[in-house]
Amino acid sequence: MSARRITLLTDFGTRDGFVGAVKGVLAALAPDALVEDIAHDLAAGDVRAGARALARYWARYPEGTVHLAVVDPGVGTERRALACSASDRFLVGPDNGVLTPALAGGAAVRCVRLDPARVAAPTTGIAPTFHGRDLFAPAAAALARGRPLQELGPAAADPVLAAQPEPVRTECGAEGVVVAVDRFGNLTTSVPGSWGARGDVVEAAGRSLVLRWTYGDVPVGAPLAVVDSEGRIELAVRDGSAARVLGIGEGAAVRLLRGERAR
Amino acid sequence: MSARRITLLTDFGTRDGFVGAVKGVLAALAPDALVEDIAHDLAAGDVRAGARALARYWARYPEGTVHLAVVDPGVGTERRALACSASDRFLVGPDNGVLTPALAGGAAVRCVRLDPARVAAPTTGIAPTFHGRDLFAPAAAALARGRPLQELGPAAADPVLAAQPEPVRTECGAEGVVVAVDRFGNLTTSVPGSWGARGDVVEAAGRSLVLRWTYGDVPVGAPLAVVDSEGRIELAVRDGSAARVLGIGEGAAVRLLRGERAR
Amino acid sequence: MSARRITLLTDFGTRDGFVGAVKGVLAALAPDALVEDIAHDLAAGDVRAGARALARYWARYPEGTVHLAVVDPGVGTERRALACSASDRFLVGPDNGVLTPALAGGAAVRCVRLDPARVAAPTTGIAPTFHGRDLFAPAAAALARGRPLQELGPAAADPVLAAQPEPVRTECGAEGVVVAVDRFGNLTTSVPGSWGARGDVVEAAGRSLVLRWTYGDVPVGAPLAVVDSEGRIELAVRDGSAARVLGIGEGAAVRLLRGERAR
Repeated sequence: MSARRITLLTDFGTRDGFVGAVKGVLAALAPDALVEDIAHDLAAGDVRAGARALARYWARYPEGTVHLAVVDPGVGTERRALACSASDRFLVGPDNGVLTPALAGGAAVRCVRLDPARVAAPTTGIAPTFHGRDLFAPAAAALARGRPLQELGPAAADPVLAAQPEPVRTECGAEGVVVAVDRFGNLTTSVPGSWGARGDVVEAAGRSLVLRWTYGDVPVGAPLAVVDSEGRIELAVRDGSAARVLGIGEGAAVRLLRGERAR
Repeated sequence: MSARRITLLTDFGTRDGFVGAVKGVLAALAPDALVEDIAHDLAAGDVRAGARALARYWARYPEGTVHLAVVDPGVGTERRALACSASDRFLVGPDNGVLTPALAGGAAVRCVRLDPARVAAPTTGIAPTFHGRDLFAPAAAALARGRPLQELGPAAADPVLAAQPEPVRTECGAEGVVVAVDRFGNLTTSVPGSWGARGDVVEAAGRSLVLRWTYGDVPVGAPLAVVDSEGRIELAVRDGSAARVLGIGEGAAVRLLRGERAR
Repeated sequence: MSARRITLLTDFGTRDGFVGAVKGVLAALAPDALVEDIAHDLAAGDVRAGARALARYWARYPEGTVHLAVVDPGVGTERRALACSASDRFLVGPDNGVLTPALAGGAAVRCVRLDPARVAAPTTGIAPTFHGRDLFAPAAAALARGRPLQELGPAAADPVLAAQPEPVRTECGAEGVVVAVDRFGNLTTSVPGSWGARGDVVEAAGRSLVLRWTYGDVPVGAPLAVVDSEGRIELAVRDGSAARVLGIGEGAAVRLLRGERAR
């Protein structure tokens, strides 16, 4: 069998050495696991940004992968610490919504509340300000080594799920909002690509963008809409930033106009 | 045999989860390969910066390594998607010049144009805006698992090569330009170090810098020229930034004065 | 036996490809070692920041780990290049204090001065401006492959240790300074947590912060003191930045007031 992988998503930054501390614990407790960095430059405490990133990769990894996601502004409060299984992958992190993409809508989701007495190294204990190192990392290492989920703590019902803006079908098409701005300035919306068709129009920021197949369908600098790599409608500018050109960001309203309505 | 390595260079940033998606695909399709990050913070769409980075590492890795380099402003246009072999390493990326350091001047370079029907996962298809995940990563995984290059698509002639400023020998020495500014403010020039000798002078920004062996040969804060770790003449300031001190950057003219001409 | 790990801490940034060059050398010379990134975004030449990061992770990794730490403003000067063993881990880097956390106060610390003739690849030599690639990486690879430390060079006594501000016990408690500001704006002090107790007061920036168990013990936005995950007293603001709220940084004076003195 191939070595299990542990992925690591945090808002720790790298330069302080906190990520190194987490990796050191993983190396000590699960020496045969492969640890892969996802990102450490999430804005401090930005749980929703963590969830958005997780949505893009968690199910791409093979079964058995352990996804450790520590964006944890509530460390040192009563928020629960979770380990979960979903679609045969494992998720470990605080119960604050960061794990939403894996836990929402899934049929076979199971979670346990991490029990420090069963998870943490008995000799070192748990620093009340660094559960990433002392609680979540040992839990991830245990799962990577094959320890059953239910041994890590009592079953935990109703994990916190981040609210997701629901798009609405209308007579003319649909209404939704911008849910994310990526590094390139592309604007992800809440509207499923399957609700539209090529040639439809998306209205945003007072402009009308035609839904195209891909960026190359318009001249350089022109705005357009496409169905993004996650299946949602995205507003973009070829070789440019839609966020800058349209002057909008997260939460901005968008409207899909179907067929002849679009013309 | 040791596991094959796949290196990953992109302009995706890390926080959106795109890099995670690519790594997830690699983990799923080539579970025994070791994936190593090179950089993900290239300026968006900066193909030349990608090529400059690639030049520094691609041949340092052992034979068999698969180098995935996705700086791809032309995704969704007619630009070709390539997989190549050069000096017994593999290169995978868009045909826009990012692979230049490995493909230029090499004797035994072979390229194929990636055929989606042979490379992509049949069930998921290829998102027209994310070839990094759906086309390049599966190709890199296939090569890491030992699949022959020619099975990935038809032979592709004449890959795009980025124009490289050619230094010119002159009566007094040579003329060239600054081709890169690194993180420390060092200025890499197009002039080969072998064209000069210690004690020669490099003129740039109206100043004369003596070609030295290494930084320690001048006092702190003083400018100098050295032969850099890639064998080209570099302008530097000990414990400082030559870019800032000299006030120049990419494209600036430099002139090498040999021997007595330098005095 | 599990594969040896090599960790990598630098101030190279990633985008220039220097880190890739180091990793390529490691892959070529120690193909079975697992290479893990710690950080590459240390401020250029900031040796003390390197040491602070190293302090957080080096001993967390299992025995046998090779820690490569290259923050090397003195490359090309007479500073020594070191490889050391401490507590059954290995440390490789310049002799400028960056290795202090592992070398200070340790009982079983041994160091050698890297001998280029024994370490570097005979065919390629050592670029005088890039010891990370040409000297330190080959040394780390050799140690990861099990080559004995003493084969890499002659014994080196008295490695450079960075001065660490010593806290002072006073009649009322203790006096110390802020020694680091982390990404979240938390202020690490030089005062050991074991010198205080819950309910004690820490004075800083003209304010009195009560020493608590953890962040959740105060309302959002309130300042407090805690014992951090390394056992030192830390000044923090729940869900905020103590650096910003208190308006102080590295070097600022702090005073611990014990028991009734605190009230």
